[in-house]
Amino acid sequence: MPSAPKKSKGQQAPDRPSRAGSEALLQGVLEGNRTALARAITLVESRRPQDSLAARQVVEGCLPHAGRSIRIGITGVPGVGKSTFIERLGLQLIQQGHRVAVLAVDPSSSLSKGSILGDKTRMQQLSRAEEAFIRPSPAGETLGGVARKTRETISLCEAAGYDVVLVETVGVGQSETAVHGMVDFFLLLKITGAGDELQGIKRGIMEMADAIVINKAEGANLPAARQARGIFENALQLYPPKPGGWVPKVLLCSATEGTGFEAIWNLISEFREMATGSGLLASERAEQNLQWFRQAADQGLLAGFYNRPGIREAYEQLREAVGAGTISPFQAAEELLERWNSPPA
Amino acid sequence: MPSAPKKSKGQQAPDRPSRAGSEALLQGVLEGNRTALARAITLVESRRPQDSLAARQVVEGCLPHAGRSIRIGITGVPGVGKSTFIERLGLQLIQQGHRVAVLAVDPSSSLSKGSILGDKTRMQQLSRAEEAFIRPSPAGETLGGVARKTRETISLCEAAGYDVVLVETVGVGQSETAVHGMVDFFLLLKITGAGDELQGIKRGIMEMADAIVINKAEGANLPAARQARGIFENALQLYPPKPGGWVPKVLLCSATEGTGFEAIWNLISEFREMATGSGLLASERAEQNLQWFRQAADQGLLAGFYNRPGIREAYEQLREAVGAGTISPFQAAEELLERWNSPPA
Repeated sequence: MPSAPKKSKGQQAPDRPSRAGSEALLQGVLEGNRTALARAITLVESRRPQDSLAARQVVEGCLPHAGRSIRIGITGVPGVGKSTFIERLGLQLIQQGHRVAVLAVDPSSSLSKGSILGDKTRMQQLSRAEEAFIRPSPAGETLGGVARKTRETISLCEAAGYDVVLVETVGVGQSETAVHGMVDFFLLLKITGAGDELQGIKRGIMEMADAIVINKAEGANLPAARQARGIFENALQLYPPKPGGWVPKVLLCSATEGTGFEAIWNLISEFREMATGSGLLASERAEQNLQWFRQAADQGLLAGFYNRPGIREAYEQLREAVGAGTISPFQAAEELLERWNSPPA
Repeated sequence: MPSAPKKSKGQQAPDRPSRAGSEALLQGVLEGNRTALARAITLVESRRPQDSLAARQVVEGCLPHAGRSIRIGITGVPGVGKSTFIERLGLQLIQQGHRVAVLAVDPSSSLSKGSILGDKTRMQQLSRAEEAFIRPSPAGETLGGVARKTRETISLCEAAGYDVVLVETVGVGQSETAVHGMVDFFLLLKITGAGDELQGIKRGIMEMADAIVINKAEGANLPAARQARGIFENALQLYPPKPGGWVPKVLLCSATEGTGFEAIWNLISEFREMATGSGLLASERAEQNLQWFRQAADQGLLAGFYNRPGIREAYEQLREAVGAGTISPFQAAEELLERWNSPPA
């Protein structure tokens, strides 16, 4: 959570920004002020209708300055060592002069206590660094809400001068697809050793990966990690080439010992060079944005429809009939839509 | 194409069935009359509004008698030998006393001349058999239209007493997902030998497969086919277990030489026994139907929205703004939906 905002230049920073307030906030973000960035994100995450206009102003003010980072998604099942991995990668990048933002997509964080990034003690060293900005997953939201807010937060971080954005996902559920749709490079973190190294990959995740990194490749674990690398390399061959002809790689690392990170960053840099030079980065991002637009419009429309009085009841009745096999699913859909076209009771 | 309908019991069979006509047609289907079945499918495939009620009556009349088949999806890229495979499998099943319906999902068939199953000479022996019913993909339709019509045709075939339904898909594009959503067992056909045996698997297809069958495993090809089997078996291990704990298998066959088909049918029978005994078959089918219902309703709603005058233009304008990066995709979606909620101009 952001600390209390500093007052700047005699300007009052009200709890609910006025037009002047949101302009000052935007200015702070563009100057790279971490407190202003944290407050701007809080504004974007707010569910209060009265914050909506100011949030929109801040996001739109940031958009022309956004886009200048490499966006990296990191996924892996719990226990794979994601936070140690991110901390180690982040610290290395800071040493090389980068500014690193770490975000998270975890729609479950409001329900469970297992919120990722909710506890900054997980990444103590990185969170103390001036050049890092760590933000937990927005709480109390559906996946759609989390995704929107994280997507807009990426733009805010970029406008604030962070040139590497790491987006962590919890590794279970649907959040991987959402994160895959907002990053340039998608990294799947795995471990080996317990005989279950190959378990728990959700369907479709492996196909999204631009790189698979096998963590905890250290000591007695090393032979098993090397063997797993071979298996993954073979499996990746079964998929068709990715956009731009990128061939996913399998790398080893040890987050606790700090080995393998140079090769990981080299690989990401190689990808970035290829994707920037070929125009792939720009075209993929434009495509992602058009997909978010369409998806958000579709979801808004559908939510409005199914929540309409009369429709919800009709939907449930028709669902029962479909489940009982007394009506074809398509005919049921037609009947539901007929209710929409007839005037509401 | 169905031949001209026989007149039955002095009843005129009009081109556009009356209520009495659709009842006679339904009766013919339930009696297992192939001509009646072909006519009923033509009715279901019709795009003429005046056929809609009769089609609905026939489908609803068939539903209580549907569901008594094993539904098998078969996919594979062109050149893999799908028609020879299906003919061989179909002939074997007929010899064992089954009645076999062969359908196809190919939304491209209206555009290209590569229509699958459009040419019955592809399966000459099978198409001559009394116990087989072969139907090409509905032409001139979107994937959604093809899927709906094929899904309803499955019910018609089952009501007509076909106890094995094979649904072929063209192996490129989105049709695999649609077919996967209407069958009990999904079979991926592969070949080996040309060095490209592992190419051309669309993303996500391998994960859907309940079995992978490597065709043309014959003569000098056999060692390569065996090697490919090992690679696929390793790759399949990387996926989480399927519903009911089913573990996908990799089998070899030669459709031209007729080898391997007993093992293939044994595997499908084993699956069917497991899925029937455990209740998985019934629950998966109910789930599929609910998904078709929701999907058809969603698609109908969205199509109605985006085709509305004013919305289409606003959508295109906002898409441009999103593409240019001057508006957040989410804010663009909100603006689009505001147009919906305001009264039409």
